[in-house]
Amino acid sequence: MPHIDLPAEMPGIRGPMAFRPETAKPLNELADILLHAPGPLTPGERELIAAFVSSGNECHYCHTIHGAVAAHHLHGDEGLVAQVKADYEASRISPKLKALLAIADRVRKSGKNVDAPCIERAKELGASDLEIHDTVLIAAAFCMFNRYVDGLATWAPEDPEFYRQRAAKLAQNGYRGTNADLMAR
Amino acid sequence: MPHIDLPAEMPGIRGPMAFRPETAKPLNELADILLHAPGPLTPGERELIAAFVSSGNECHYCHTIHGAVAAHHLHGDEGLVAQVKADYEASRISPKLKALLAIADRVRKSGKNVDAPCIERAKELGASDLEIHDTVLIAAAFCMFNRYVDGLATWAPEDPEFYRQRAAKLAQNGYRGTNADLMAR
Repeated sequence: MPHIDLPAEMPGIRGPMAFRPETAKPLNELADILLHAPGPLTPGERELIAAFVSSGNECHYCHTIHGAVAAHHLHGDEGLVAQVKADYEASRISPKLKALLAIADRVRKSGKNVDAPCIERAKELGASDLEIHDTVLIAAAFCMFNRYVDGLATWAPEDPEFYRQRAAKLAQNGYRGTNADLMAR
Repeated sequence: MPHIDLPAEMPGIRGPMAFRPETAKPLNELADILLHAPGPLTPGERELIAAFVSSGNECHYCHTIHGAVAAHHLHGDEGLVAQVKADYEASRISPKLKALLAIADRVRKSGKNVDAPCIERAKELGASDLEIHDTVLIAAAFCMFNRYVDGLATWAPEDPEFYRQRAAKLAQNGYRGTNADLMAR
């Protein structure tokens, strides 16, 4: 049961967002810019970073929904998403994305863990400053979203089909929404 | 030296915000709603939560600037701010704010650390659902801001007077700004 009186029918982050629409607006805008709007990394790559960080933080709602959005962008390859969460260095992703996930993993533990060698590895594999910036901010932002979702003890559906269906909508429409949209999602 | 090519003259979070104004906009809006706009907790209380969490995460720029804004709101009482960072349970703050800082400290480590007894303590001392929500989101948001600032290896001024002067502006004007304002601050 959530720690505060949230709308009972809304799982995960949607409960607190409906409870406090003022903060939901910039939170959704931030997610949309980082994950959905045109950017230097593909939406699939960015959703993988979000799912990977959320998995490390053991946030069930976040790593499941963003894993499902990543799979949607990656031609439904749920096996690849599961492998990235479990052992990304051994997975079939590009060397550059592996280097960016290594940075994200350090950010997740502490910003101070990001050192020159892990940045150099990413740059040598072709990562731009903007790609490194966005990787750091996606990882940092999911350290916020995960704590927001779990710190209020929100509930998460168990049925994987729930996440697949919602992921298809998010992959198409993004995260930016009016509060009315938010309520309808 | 920052890990990516940030505007050299801008310390702390201002460097990455000038580098990527698209994400700076919702980040500043979020900070403004949580810390500056009218809310159930006073600006001094909210800045103390931000400074306390940033101190726990050892983010020098964030805990110094938000500690300075808190002191500005608290009649310049820098000693109180220092004591809250070091040992808030022994400090001269209200029992309710102590209970909220206990929640913030748990959120900082992991959202999953927030348990029913620490929520009950806050509610028994008069904390509303909205105050608990905002405490959780302030703590979560500073887990993001701290990682953003340190994950890119931004620089921080050492002179305390820099922070006092900037804090006076932030306390008065808040965090919401156009990108032009951002560049001028």
